[in-house]
Amino acid sequence: MPEPLSELPVWRYRQGRVQAAPDGVVVEEPLEIRLAGEPFQMLMRLPGLEKELALGFLYTEGIVRDLAEVITIHFCGTATDPLLPPNVVDVMLSEEAMNRRGRRHLEVAYSSCGLCAKEAVDEICRKVPRVASTLTIRPDRLLALMARLPEAQDVFQATGGTHAVALASPDGQIFLSAEDVGRHNAMDKVIGQALWEKRNFGELVALLSGRISFEMALKATRAGIPLLAAVSAPTTMAIELAQELNLTLAGFVRGNNLNIYTHPQRLGVG
Amino acid sequence: MPEPLSELPVWRYRQGRVQAAPDGVVVEEPLEIRLAGEPFQMLMRLPGLEKELALGFLYTEGIVRDLAEVITIHFCGTATDPLLPPNVVDVMLSEEAMNRRGRRHLEVAYSSCGLCAKEAVDEICRKVPRVASTLTIRPDRLLALMARLPEAQDVFQATGGTHAVALASPDGQIFLSAEDVGRHNAMDKVIGQALWEKRNFGELVALLSGRISFEMALKATRAGIPLLAAVSAPTTMAIELAQELNLTLAGFVRGNNLNIYTHPQRLGVG
Repeated sequence: MPEPLSELPVWRYRQGRVQAAPDGVVVEEPLEIRLAGEPFQMLMRLPGLEKELALGFLYTEGIVRDLAEVITIHFCGTATDPLLPPNVVDVMLSEEAMNRRGRRHLEVAYSSCGLCAKEAVDEICRKVPRVASTLTIRPDRLLALMARLPEAQDVFQATGGTHAVALASPDGQIFLSAEDVGRHNAMDKVIGQALWEKRNFGELVALLSGRISFEMALKATRAGIPLLAAVSAPTTMAIELAQELNLTLAGFVRGNNLNIYTHPQRLGVG
Repeated sequence: MPEPLSELPVWRYRQGRVQAAPDGVVVEEPLEIRLAGEPFQMLMRLPGLEKELALGFLYTEGIVRDLAEVITIHFCGTATDPLLPPNVVDVMLSEEAMNRRGRRHLEVAYSSCGLCAKEAVDEICRKVPRVASTLTIRPDRLLALMARLPEAQDVFQATGGTHAVALASPDGQIFLSAEDVGRHNAMDKVIGQALWEKRNFGELVALLSGRISFEMALKATRAGIPLLAAVSAPTTMAIELAQELNLTLAGFVRGNNLNIYTHPQRLGVG
């Protein structure tokens, strides 16, 4: 296992005085996702959960629609391997899934839409089904789950340099989490984990340490997650997508408070 | 000018009670950058400074190396225009710059490197010159400049949903800033502004509201900015790049304190 943090020399300036001392810095490394040996996507990521990251990425991009379409996933770590170079995940997919690799969600939406947010969202809505889950959770339970997110942020505690995403059941029995230097990667890692473990996404809520952009909302919706809650703010486009596809969005989920932007019935409101 | 924020209905849960009231949400819209009419890149961004964003993006990707290579930049806003659709920037470049469009910095680095961070950084170093600037700034001056960043964060104050980047001269006379839903866009917007105004990047420091990833450090280096200071943490790969290319990195720049990770001589240290 590569270390998620590295001790590097740092000069600390504190109230006018300088001290040199090593400090923990979050590790960032490239990762190449290959499909049947062909380069497909390059990501900059925190080492760890590489197979989950690749699986989650392919799932939230709409290339893999079911775990049964994944034949093999290989990752050889950062060590040198005669068959697979370091920082490469190689995925073998069924023919049907392979045929979807040229039609990635966002790219399709972008090139065919009229280029306003509304049309881009409408385009996505023709391709991605509405979230069907009827899950409900009390706001105080959601706040209690969010209060557990810092426990999942070991690398953040040591470096201040990561985002975290967790997938949890309302009763807290299931609590999968991942950290990464990028929010999108953290989301894909945890979705990949849940998919691998054959969890029912309709019974889970997603908890984010950061903000909810359009792409983050799309990833959650694509997985069929019914509720996306974040410590920080959503964007208009994330709200538009969530409204159309029956995703409940909660933002500024902090302490005893939260804001609900769409489909508040899942939180017993409205 | 499109509005950077939108009033949307929100259900506020506060200490067990729910109130419905509109709240400001940051606007996210797609933007397509075209080169001579051909789609080149799609970005999700906060409306505003579109021409600057396109210019900065092309510059930090290494496609445009000099403002003289830019023949025209058109943007017709979000209104319908008979010649150019909404949310599209169309850029005409010199033939020499156009020929660089297939060789984008990061992609070249990724596909030819051995896929470890060190080799990716080495590959970049063969293409991007070291920062030549001998700029110096006292730590207390840098802290004073960073203290001005919140003034540049109007949309953040109203929505909590943006990142900000500023480019400032050590004396504070020059202070260009931009906000966006994405850190990379905020950086490109402010670099595009400075390029447009023919500023000398070697005399400016960059101030970030967020974190310093490899890509953020690369954008600064590509522009020739000598010092990148952020409220939050850098990654190992950003530090490696900065070390090799003579960029000073400062992180956790808050209140009276800051950490220096590389080339501390620009802050009068070491």
